[in-house]
Amino acid sequence: MSQQPMMSAAVLDRPLSIEVKQVPVPEPKPDEALIRVHCIGICGSDVHYYEHGRIGRYEVKEPLILGHELAGVVVRTGENVTNVAPGDRVAVEPGVTCGRCSYCKSGRYNLCPDVVFMATPPVDGAWAEYVAVRSDFLFRLPDEMSFEEGALLEPLSVGIHAVRRGRIRPEDRVLVLGLGPIGLLAIQAARMAGASAVYGSDVVEFRRKLALQMGAAGVIDPQQDDVSERIQEVTGGGGIDLVIETSGNAGAIAGSIGYVNRGGRIVLVGLPTRDAIPVDIGALVDAELDVHGVFRYVNTYPAAIRMLEGGSHRIRDIITHQFSLNEIKEAIELARTQKDSSVKVMIYPHSTS
Amino acid sequence: MSQQPMMSAAVLDRPLSIEVKQVPVPEPKPDEALIRVHCIGICGSDVHYYEHGRIGRYEVKEPLILGHELAGVVVRTGENVTNVAPGDRVAVEPGVTCGRCSYCKSGRYNLCPDVVFMATPPVDGAWAEYVAVRSDFLFRLPDEMSFEEGALLEPLSVGIHAVRRGRIRPEDRVLVLGLGPIGLLAIQAARMAGASAVYGSDVVEFRRKLALQMGAAGVIDPQQDDVSERIQEVTGGGGIDLVIETSGNAGAIAGSIGYVNRGGRIVLVGLPTRDAIPVDIGALVDAELDVHGVFRYVNTYPAAIRMLEGGSHRIRDIITHQFSLNEIKEAIELARTQKDSSVKVMIYPHSTS
Amino acid sequence: MSQQPMMSAAVLDRPLSIEVKQVPVPEPKPDEALIRVHCIGICGSDVHYYEHGRIGRYEVKEPLILGHELAGVVVRTGENVTNVAPGDRVAVEPGVTCGRCSYCKSGRYNLCPDVVFMATPPVDGAWAEYVAVRSDFLFRLPDEMSFEEGALLEPLSVGIHAVRRGRIRPEDRVLVLGLGPIGLLAIQAARMAGASAVYGSDVVEFRRKLALQMGAAGVIDPQQDDVSERIQEVTGGGGIDLVIETSGNAGAIAGSIGYVNRGGRIVLVGLPTRDAIPVDIGALVDAELDVHGVFRYVNTYPAAIRMLEGGSHRIRDIITHQFSLNEIKEAIELARTQKDSSVKVMIYPHSTS
Amino acid sequence: MSQQPMMSAAVLDRPLSIEVKQVPVPEPKPDEALIRVHCIGICGSDVHYYEHGRIGRYEVKEPLILGHELAGVVVRTGENVTNVAPGDRVAVEPGVTCGRCSYCKSGRYNLCPDVVFMATPPVDGAWAEYVAVRSDFLFRLPDEMSFEEGALLEPLSVGIHAVRRGRIRPEDRVLVLGLGPIGLLAIQAARMAGASAVYGSDVVEFRRKLALQMGAAGVIDPQQDDVSERIQEVTGGGGIDLVIETSGNAGAIAGSIGYVNRGGRIVLVGLPTRDAIPVDIGALVDAELDVHGVFRYVNTYPAAIRMLEGGSHRIRDIITHQFSLNEIKEAIELARTQKDSSVKVMIYPHSTS
Repeated sequence: MSQQPMMSAAVLDRPLSIEVKQVPVPEPKPDEALIRVHCIGICGSDVHYYEHGRIGRYEVKEPLILGHELAGVVVRTGENVTNVAPGDRVAVEPGVTCGRCSYCKSGRYNLCPDVVFMATPPVDGAWAEYVAVRSDFLFRLPDEMSFEEGALLEPLSVGIHAVRRGRIRPEDRVLVLGLGPIGLLAIQAARMAGASAVYGSDVVEFRRKLALQMGAAGVIDPQQDDVSERIQEVTGGGGIDLVIETSGNAGAIAGSIGYVNRGGRIVLVGLPTRDAIPVDIGALVDAELDVHGVFRYVNTYPAAIRMLEGGSHRIRDIITHQFSLNEIKEAIELARTQKDSSVKVMIYPHSTS
Repeated sequence: MSQQPMMSAAVLDRPLSIEVKQVPVPEPKPDEALIRVHCIGICGSDVHYYEHGRIGRYEVKEPLILGHELAGVVVRTGENVTNVAPGDRVAVEPGVTCGRCSYCKSGRYNLCPDVVFMATPPVDGAWAEYVAVRSDFLFRLPDEMSFEEGALLEPLSVGIHAVRRGRIRPEDRVLVLGLGPIGLLAIQAARMAGASAVYGSDVVEFRRKLALQMGAAGVIDPQQDDVSERIQEVTGGGGIDLVIETSGNAGAIAGSIGYVNRGGRIVLVGLPTRDAIPVDIGALVDAELDVHGVFRYVNTYPAAIRMLEGGSHRIRDIITHQFSLNEIKEAIELARTQKDSSVKVMIYPHSTS
Repeated sequence: MSQQPMMSAAVLDRPLSIEVKQVPVPEPKPDEALIRVHCIGICGSDVHYYEHGRIGRYEVKEPLILGHELAGVVVRTGENVTNVAPGDRVAVEPGVTCGRCSYCKSGRYNLCPDVVFMATPPVDGAWAEYVAVRSDFLFRLPDEMSFEEGALLEPLSVGIHAVRRGRIRPEDRVLVLGLGPIGLLAIQAARMAGASAVYGSDVVEFRRKLALQMGAAGVIDPQQDDVSERIQEVTGGGGIDLVIETSGNAGAIAGSIGYVNRGGRIVLVGLPTRDAIPVDIGALVDAELDVHGVFRYVNTYPAAIRMLEGGSHRIRDIITHQFSLNEIKEAIELARTQKDSSVKVMIYPHSTS
Repeated sequence: MSQQPMMSAAVLDRPLSIEVKQVPVPEPKPDEALIRVHCIGICGSDVHYYEHGRIGRYEVKEPLILGHELAGVVVRTGENVTNVAPGDRVAVEPGVTCGRCSYCKSGRYNLCPDVVFMATPPVDGAWAEYVAVRSDFLFRLPDEMSFEEGALLEPLSVGIHAVRRGRIRPEDRVLVLGLGPIGLLAIQAARMAGASAVYGSDVVEFRRKLALQMGAAGVIDPQQDDVSERIQEVTGGGGIDLVIETSGNAGAIAGSIGYVNRGGRIVLVGLPTRDAIPVDIGALVDAELDVHGVFRYVNTYPAAIRMLEGGSHRIRDIITHQFSLNEIKEAIELARTQKDSSVKVMIYPHSTS
């Protein structure tokens, strides 16, 4: 009788306690493929589970493998898989949906109540050497696209979904609030949609500089600047057509109503920590604004791959640190504590450093 | 030298002081028509100016004629007018826009910064025997449509704009919060757009009963009922796809996020009196809701006339009281103080009672 | 060893040769339910396969069971089925899609290349006593909805998809060309979406009368009337905003460009028999029209059930004849040859006449 | 009594007969500005009037000044003008609309029945030293934008309107049929909207090369290549999501239905010369395509200026020849006869060559 093959995986036992352990290599089902993980990012939600053991209604009750931003190579495929083959370099969309509910059937599968999403308790993620994924959520990478870019399709997807929800137009002036990974990639998504000018706002200088380097037309420091005045200044009086809020900060959320032109659009991505935020509803009504919530993303991977093929871009610039899986503790501590000098931390499960 | 003809008009001198005076009959400009006012409603905004002398940034500094919901007969036309002729029965859209700014040119003339809107200081309204209006804001009434229905096209327009902004679909279940004139006519607008079921919520029993009489599929008393439970009950567990908030009540506005299905839409029409209202932004983001402000209306009059031609409807049911212009003080006091038994009060400037 | 249970089914062996035979009752898979067919319509496509043995690229090469417009009762469910239970009265959506391709994921599953659609060779339909269907394509009927209405949800779905594709608005004046089952139900779909007036055109007097009975505001006989003149007449000069072409007739298709207002919309549902139809493209461009093809339907069943709950309607009126399964030859011959006096023929597989 | 000032203008007396004459400098009305024309292009429609004396329903019955693609400097303003001032460099949108009809009010002013459009008989154009224009159709040029780019905003507007009508998305693969000025600028418009890849097709090698130089991802010669095969080749099997037809060629128009993916979009810009073109309607319906006519453009100038500010672009590359107004005969003959080596010919009314 053959022994089950084992692999390394980073297991979160309880808050602040994460360790690399040996766990069985998953066995792909008939419609799944086994992926050798080349690289996988650390997301804000991973850090939050690591630190607090829960996010809202999701609680880590059993040991959990985190991680859901990844690319790798197909190793083996189940018998019904036809769209990928062993050896293919692929990006992995980490939420597997039912395909049969009314949300799935109407093109909003991100709202599927039966989604199985990596690294959302009790579903394991992929800070591991291998992962098995249903093959319709695997997307072949073009030759010229790196694994890192493949892994970044996940946070980029949030940015793409945000600009779609905001019905972005090429003539728009866009302001992105919060310049973490999501904010910086929302800037890229807005630019890939042709936005005439994209501005960014963040309290951290390192991130503002990175935004400028990645194509922002101007940046704002909300602690130093009068944001509304600065908007008029940088836009030559034209104002902002679309705000994308990624910080979750109560002041930024409430302020966005005042930052956008009459008839404009606000997209809310960042999850605030407070239960309720005071909002000037009268101003929202009087200016006839549209406010759109964003929950994950839908139908973004093939689009993102094509958009990246279509032009020059700098999404890789958000990767500030790289670690092997064995260094996971150091990596996540860095991500948790050094937000002033880090953006995206990338893990390489097969690297031996 | 001919003497200028005079007419009766109700002039607001200062809060709570309104009197019928003799003022000159307006002289129509080349692109205007002079309208003999048959009937004109009292709107909540009229009552608010009467009571407080201001609404937000608009303040009554000079004596002002109120009133902007009217229909009448064309008496005389300026030399460039071709779309109406003396004798025509017409409804009057009370906001005259510039037609040349970017909002006007892109189909959102309700946001025109240069709009001249009746009964918004310092622009006079039409609680008077005659009014002159630019002819492209006059709309001929079909023979079978009454003057009263013509006057009600104004508040109905708000309802139509609200259901358009909410991208209403025939399969939608709709909940209207607040059953004053706007709420009751929003129910009609939703029904005219084919909504499968429209529910209403109000604390006043008289208004809930009127909603049922006008076609609501069910009503909710937010002071007695658990609104969320009651929604599940009346919709057989299907929930609400679209909320239209017309009350301006802080609890209703904040609550709407919990009343609507995941992925649903909220339209905010009612202007709250408080500066800021605490809103559960996390829930809005997590449920990926759309929130749309509504400011007045745009391109609704011809649509409304056609929609009313297309089927049976009961918009006239909201008229609970009728007065002559000489009784204006009694009329507006009734509208101000007896909200539990009145909805729309209609004034007849040429009636001699 | 237990014997496999058998049932009656109408089998098309070759053009014009159809016979009721005994075939095995299908065995539901884990995600399927077995349906006892209460009633099932004869569609134009069924008649076409019966007469010609093919439609375009689809050819009947093996004996085939036709029929795909049905409602019935759940008899048995596979182990994974949770949304329906034995005894449930259900309508059946007859095309089962993959749920995993880009069309399925983006809300256009009607374009799924891997769809398995009843009565489209080589897939059997349901002119039979029983049929097994994947449970996410079964929709429970409200108590007050008849099986006949449940079966008619299929052709009604085409009408609903047509008015959705045409972005119908409550103020629209709509003209439906062709008043067969699809045309008559498109009229109903337009009315359920609130259209202010819906007109119908057909050469057959019987069908024009039925259209009037079912709520058309006026009808046109394209062989007797000058269609464009008649449109101006019935609309009081307002013209048509949306044309829905269901006849497949070359003259109707080409003519539609001239029937619609500038900036209007044309929805093409009817499949023409000729390879190419001469179209005045210059007029289409000059009037800046939109032309939308319609292929089957998508996400219509739950919507249709709600829309029918929401108001009075007369979709049942299109049923002109009813037969038992044993009379299938008579029934299909009637549908094939007597288009001047029949519209929808309904088959009752368990009736013993 | 002061003498009226005169200016040079190119007057078309009859087909093929054009001459520079002295005509009065126009006097701006209160809401107009007088523009000193810096440069103005020759459009295909100008050439057509020059050659044939008519386009469709528009016939040159009186001597006519052609030309409508221009930029210049404000010289004088009417008393009501506030948005521009003498000395301002401006682009001119050449169609002045009523602002009061239902098309104007609903954001489709390009369909205004009362539009006054330059160089469309009997309205004079601007192949002249000066022209008076209503000021809301003047748009200030940023300092870094040349007059030539300002003049090219007119044909670019057609491209922008085309991609908007085609609901372009950043992930789209786009094919532009016909690589004259409109086609080449449609490529730019698609690229400015972020399209992942834009391909061009034309029989003229010079134009194909220019398309590549201006950013096309690939080109097709419809006389040499099998277009459908070539599409699969250049798109790596992905196919085309959006076709923009600018040639007016019957083969291109009919072919476009076969060039686009299932569920795709076709935008028709080019006006064919034949009355009717045979189209495979069955294929259009089966593939559920959308076909959109394009008539001029609407709300494009401010958008175009912002889009050009937002990135690098090469719209000027389409200018192949430049002439003074005195050389108008030579210029228009070149535009008429040398399509294999010219694209856009620009006229400079104040140049003395």
